[in-house]
Amino acid sequence: MDAVVLEENGSPRLVDRPRPEPGPGEVLVRIDRVGVDGTDREVVAGAHGEVAGSMVLGHEAVGSVADPNGTAFEPGETVVPTVRRPPGDYNEYFRRGEPDMAPMDATVECGIDGADGFMAEYVAVPSEFLLRLPERLAPAGFLVEPLSITAKALELVAASREPFTWERERALVLGTGSLGLLTVPVLEDRFEEVYCLGRRDRDDPAVELAREAGATYVDSRETAVDEIPDAHAPMDLVVEATGHAPHAVGAAAALAPNGVAALLGVPGDHEASVELGELHRELVVGNRALIGSVNAGYSHFERAVEWLDALPPSIVDAFTEHVYPMDRFEAALDSDVIKTAVEPHP
Amino acid sequence: MDAVVLEENGSPRLVDRPRPEPGPGEVLVRIDRVGVDGTDREVVAGAHGEVAGSMVLGHEAVGSVADPNGTAFEPGETVVPTVRRPPGDYNEYFRRGEPDMAPMDATVECGIDGADGFMAEYVAVPSEFLLRLPERLAPAGFLVEPLSITAKALELVAASREPFTWERERALVLGTGSLGLLTVPVLEDRFEEVYCLGRRDRDDPAVELAREAGATYVDSRETAVDEIPDAHAPMDLVVEATGHAPHAVGAAAALAPNGVAALLGVPGDHEASVELGELHRELVVGNRALIGSVNAGYSHFERAVEWLDALPPSIVDAFTEHVYPMDRFEAALDSDVIKTAVEPHP
Repeated sequence: MDAVVLEENGSPRLVDRPRPEPGPGEVLVRIDRVGVDGTDREVVAGAHGEVAGSMVLGHEAVGSVADPNGTAFEPGETVVPTVRRPPGDYNEYFRRGEPDMAPMDATVECGIDGADGFMAEYVAVPSEFLLRLPERLAPAGFLVEPLSITAKALELVAASREPFTWERERALVLGTGSLGLLTVPVLEDRFEEVYCLGRRDRDDPAVELAREAGATYVDSRETAVDEIPDAHAPMDLVVEATGHAPHAVGAAAALAPNGVAALLGVPGDHEASVELGELHRELVVGNRALIGSVNAGYSHFERAVEWLDALPPSIVDAFTEHVYPMDRFEAALDSDVIKTAVEPHP
Repeated sequence: MDAVVLEENGSPRLVDRPRPEPGPGEVLVRIDRVGVDGTDREVVAGAHGEVAGSMVLGHEAVGSVADPNGTAFEPGETVVPTVRRPPGDYNEYFRRGEPDMAPMDATVECGIDGADGFMAEYVAVPSEFLLRLPERLAPAGFLVEPLSITAKALELVAASREPFTWERERALVLGTGSLGLLTVPVLEDRFEEVYCLGRRDRDDPAVELAREAGATYVDSRETAVDEIPDAHAPMDLVVEATGHAPHAVGAAAALAPNGVAALLGVPGDHEASVELGELHRELVVGNRALIGSVNAGYSHFERAVEWLDALPPSIVDAFTEHVYPMDRFEAALDSDVIKTAVEPHP
């Protein structure tokens, strides 16, 4: 079968690999679509995760059950695999069903770090790392994984504000990439006003999408994130989805009292001068919080399926418009449209 | 009656004031002891809060009911007043019983910012801002207020880690001031190991107290906070109780994966160069959080009463050793021992 494989220090190539034989408890999944995101591009560039030998790319997948192999799945069911797997033996994080809370050395990540991903005609997936979704959601099913990132972050955010009455009036998404744009409609259902900050021109399709999803767009070249309280209003929630290092501090400066910022990006090194006293003081006297969040657990994937079902058609259409046959994976990786995906069986 | 009053741009003085007449719903409280802390010294130095005209100092008080004035209190009951009051009319924060979540412009603070404190022979306190405690706790009752700060912070901390299994093995307190030292025994009951970082010599009484309460002392002149993971172990919780601005970033660097730092100090301005990429990245990939917390609500004062009752006698003795008659308030303010207090009726 065909698979897109990245060799250590190499470029990804379409190669022939044997179709996997599912082991005990594993389901054989026919992959239908695999989304491409910034993390894939970082993996290809060698800036994220580790390729030991060679690794199949891709971590945002949807497929159908080709062989249930004695598990509770039925042939033909639409399924999405989760991303983290135990590195060898099951450790405590996997045993208690919290792989997303594993430290980086206690997990591998399919298609990102140390384990084969899903950009292949077939993959074998342990049934516990596979979840069902309605067949009608299959065309956009590769969006479940990015939505699960937001689902976990918003769970942590809500828990952190649970001891008091958190007024959820205004939310700000940092970033007009696919994660940011998928987060806008989710927040639009939960906050009175949603803002989205990016570095794109106002007639950019991503900006139009953010606006269609209900967000007020803020061009960061005109209004920096820490100027948003004065230019617009202080924010009860900021979701950082850029990996732009200064945004950890900038997000804090955009917060209303009792507000919280969820940090989701993974930036490279970036040294800068910071007014640490102000940062510290505003966190304290305003009861503000900064919460980092990575990956997602099974329950977050389940919530993401519900959210996918509720996405505005304009978002779904835009996110499924650029699907390439898998042998054109390079075009999918190189594209600068909002979202691309590949199909192993076009 | 006597009261210690700070005039705008002046020094505190012992002055004669009329004994307050309790209004409807107010209790007349005979003040027994008032603790002195770093905030009081900042208020006197003009670095914290605002003195409009003149203000009675003191926010850590214990007293007894002199006149219940028709409320549900009984004469002679031991009571502690909370610190925040509505600035004029009750706003939403006070109406829902969450004054500690009020932004700074929606509250005044007795003895700190815009309202008379408790360093007086008698004060009138609305009954809803007064809580009972067992009479046997009266001598150390002025420690309820600082303990309430920790109670609120630990509530926010626990809530933020509630969605997953948080392993509470190691905690680190930054600071060997009174708040830090009171926090050590509380954490000692909840974590397997407690560390305490400060800038004092190893034979300093504060360091001995921290050690007696069960903490491993770390001299920050030998081991910086961000070196603690290598020198000792990464921390599941860091409680910052110093107001040293670089500690917001340093605390994050001391955290284990899934750890959380509570920031409690209120530093002045402090600009410094920071590796923002590393801070941001470690927060994200380690699911770490920074949580600011200020003041405390009624439920936190109630928890603090329980914690006061459970404090080791060595801590209680050390914290109640230096009690001055109120006319010697200057000695209490100038002292560099762990904790001082004044008595209006010695």
